[in-house]
Amino acid sequence: MSKANAFYAQSGGVTPVINASACGVIETAALYKDIIGKVYAGRNGIVGALREDLIDTSKETKKAIRGLMTTPAGAFGSCRYKLRSLKENRAEYERLIAVFKAHNIRYFFYNGGGDSADTCLKVSQLSQTMGYPLQAIHVPKTIDNDLPVTDNSPGFASVAKYVAISTREAAFDVASMCDTSTKVFILEVMGRHAGWIAGASCLATTETSSAPHVILFPEIPFREQDFLNKVRQAVDRCGYCVVVASEGVQDADGNFLSDSGVRDAFGHAQLGGLAPTLANLIKSNLGYKFHWAVSDYLQRAARHIASQTDVDQAYAVGAAAVKFAAAGKNAVMPTIIRLPGSRYRWQIGETALTRVANREKKMPRKFISRDGFGVTAAGRAYFEPLVQGEAYPEYREGMPIYTVLKNVPVPRKLTETFDI
Amino acid sequence: MSKANAFYAQSGGVTPVINASACGVIETAALYKDIIGKVYAGRNGIVGALREDLIDTSKETKKAIRGLMTTPAGAFGSCRYKLRSLKENRAEYERLIAVFKAHNIRYFFYNGGGDSADTCLKVSQLSQTMGYPLQAIHVPKTIDNDLPVTDNSPGFASVAKYVAISTREAAFDVASMCDTSTKVFILEVMGRHAGWIAGASCLATTETSSAPHVILFPEIPFREQDFLNKVRQAVDRCGYCVVVASEGVQDADGNFLSDSGVRDAFGHAQLGGLAPTLANLIKSNLGYKFHWAVSDYLQRAARHIASQTDVDQAYAVGAAAVKFAAAGKNAVMPTIIRLPGSRYRWQIGETALTRVANREKKMPRKFISRDGFGVTAAGRAYFEPLVQGEAYPEYREGMPIYTVLKNVPVPRKLTETFDI
Repeated sequence: MSKANAFYAQSGGVTPVINASACGVIETAALYKDIIGKVYAGRNGIVGALREDLIDTSKETKKAIRGLMTTPAGAFGSCRYKLRSLKENRAEYERLIAVFKAHNIRYFFYNGGGDSADTCLKVSQLSQTMGYPLQAIHVPKTIDNDLPVTDNSPGFASVAKYVAISTREAAFDVASMCDTSTKVFILEVMGRHAGWIAGASCLATTETSSAPHVILFPEIPFREQDFLNKVRQAVDRCGYCVVVASEGVQDADGNFLSDSGVRDAFGHAQLGGLAPTLANLIKSNLGYKFHWAVSDYLQRAARHIASQTDVDQAYAVGAAAVKFAAAGKNAVMPTIIRLPGSRYRWQIGETALTRVANREKKMPRKFISRDGFGVTAAGRAYFEPLVQGEAYPEYREGMPIYTVLKNVPVPRKLTETFDI
Repeated sequence: MSKANAFYAQSGGVTPVINASACGVIETAALYKDIIGKVYAGRNGIVGALREDLIDTSKETKKAIRGLMTTPAGAFGSCRYKLRSLKENRAEYERLIAVFKAHNIRYFFYNGGGDSADTCLKVSQLSQTMGYPLQAIHVPKTIDNDLPVTDNSPGFASVAKYVAISTREAAFDVASMCDTSTKVFILEVMGRHAGWIAGASCLATTETSSAPHVILFPEIPFREQDFLNKVRQAVDRCGYCVVVASEGVQDADGNFLSDSGVRDAFGHAQLGGLAPTLANLIKSNLGYKFHWAVSDYLQRAARHIASQTDVDQAYAVGAAAVKFAAAGKNAVMPTIIRLPGSRYRWQIGETALTRVANREKKMPRKFISRDGFGVTAAGRAYFEPLVQGEAYPEYREGMPIYTVLKNVPVPRKLTETFDI
């Protein structure tokens, strides 16, 4: 195997630990100096490759690359950009090959979710379809936890931890206030089609605190009267009610309860505003004073309270991707396998990208309680180990130290530009 | 001075550290056994006194009381309930005296903000107006930081830390996404009439990150065109824009940009929904894709990232209140004094309640930048030391351990009940 450079890019919504995967890729590539030359990162994901806007990660200090372990979001920039099929837009693939050829890139590491796995799969087929020798490995990442095959997706566990902690904290707050003031608190969390994030809020429940009392999943059609009854029962029983709602809650006809009308590059609806919708529903039907929060980006950027398990796994999938490439593999993705036994143990597995691309793993029905508003013991047992460990960043002057890379561009070699 | 019991109650919106003040009161009272008997807490604030619903804090273990140091919200329940004047509702004061007399209570510690200081002041006058010997000491608390005289109010610094960290984290996120997706992120924070919380987000700014680009203060009348210009300039310069907005932003006529129409017991408007209002304004005028978050209760319950400085000060004002009572004082409040010098040092001071009740301390104009959208160096120098130190709670199974007290009721002695 002759020596070649590697391309690494971050894709889709970022996470608290996607940079830990980047660190895993870059540090591990350095262990394979005989076959892997430099790691070039795409500035703003795959569009960096199309624009020949590459970042030379070898210009960073080792300390800066290590700093990625405790830095949220995408250090090289991410993108929402989906490659069309070869048939629809052959020019994009020809451009990718031109750029890769110019920079001697024959390893492609793509760090993303289900949509990005589709992009990675298309790129992995370039050697067959366009005769360019390239190995493409997908590095799993998504806060939505909806990637199939893998037991969980790096990024999810930290969001789960943030949402569970925030739910517990807000529950203590509303419990203090409910006698003469707020009786209902609604937390809107991410999760367009899968309720994993909302489900993780079940970890807030303790022997002495029953919150959250109502969880709304995209998997369970929203029935207004059942929801209102459940809220009223909680207030009657506990004096207050905590609701955690997935942004993607839908009615029986599949309409989102809150749809802003905006669509992203993948055609997905930009959702938001569910919490105030639910709050007004409760106010007008039950009359309770309410508060609501929408955590939005805060939940997926909250590196300050990331799960150590998540950080470890994010690094491991990055490292494994490089090892797969070094072993000559193509069109695969490292997975996380939960080993049997009462104590949580995990190891890295491998799956074909064809089994991952464009598939969504929803919450299994057995993880959702019979009435559709809670999480079963089996569900809780799934979530519990993922949030273990507090991977605190370092602080200076009371604020977390997050790394900003120099992101030195690789000199361009092509004369042609390419418009996105 | 003969021995008597003490009454302690939490009032108004709770904070991440109000329980640390409770701990300070209870642990310090135990040092004055010759004059202070038991500490009875009001269940749900002052209404616990009116209802003769008292909690015997001596029934808790020392460990549980220590657990209050790391537990958010109000461990005894809080309330939004304002005593009317003696002239308007003499029955309430007669009831208080009946309850205090029945339980030999002659020390009154009230843990709250400006409205609560008014209640505490009225109670402090009972010895004069109704001939009942009582010493009332106010224990300062408010996330809004709007209490006068004191340099800062316990509770604020932890919210400041949470908001500053969340702003920094979300800024990293939107910076990653802005090339092909979200360009504007809006964080709505608390602050009805004073912009202290929004102002603290200035600590997110670093040498390499200019966010937040726009801060909206209640103190500065909202001018739509100036705001839109500022957002566009940030996007042109940085590629993205982070906005932090106080919920209480008002137009030049004093109308809240977002008013849900609901009023609380103090007649204050329940605000909310400002972030989506601003987002739609930006979308329709500038066309940028946006995300917004409303942190609401999450910000004031976030004990997981409380400021150590705040925890220390919250305990200290609780302890000082007891010492003031033991020294025979009445109608006073401990304050926090910032000592001169380049290194931050503070000590406890004392002020008369008449100087505190019903007064709001807004952000001084010199802390707000000339254009009204940022914080000056003087403002930053004010905020910086307050967020120092991470007072992490302990964790079990990946979740913070928060204390729930037994809250054993004191047997009732009165036959009459009292309706609130």
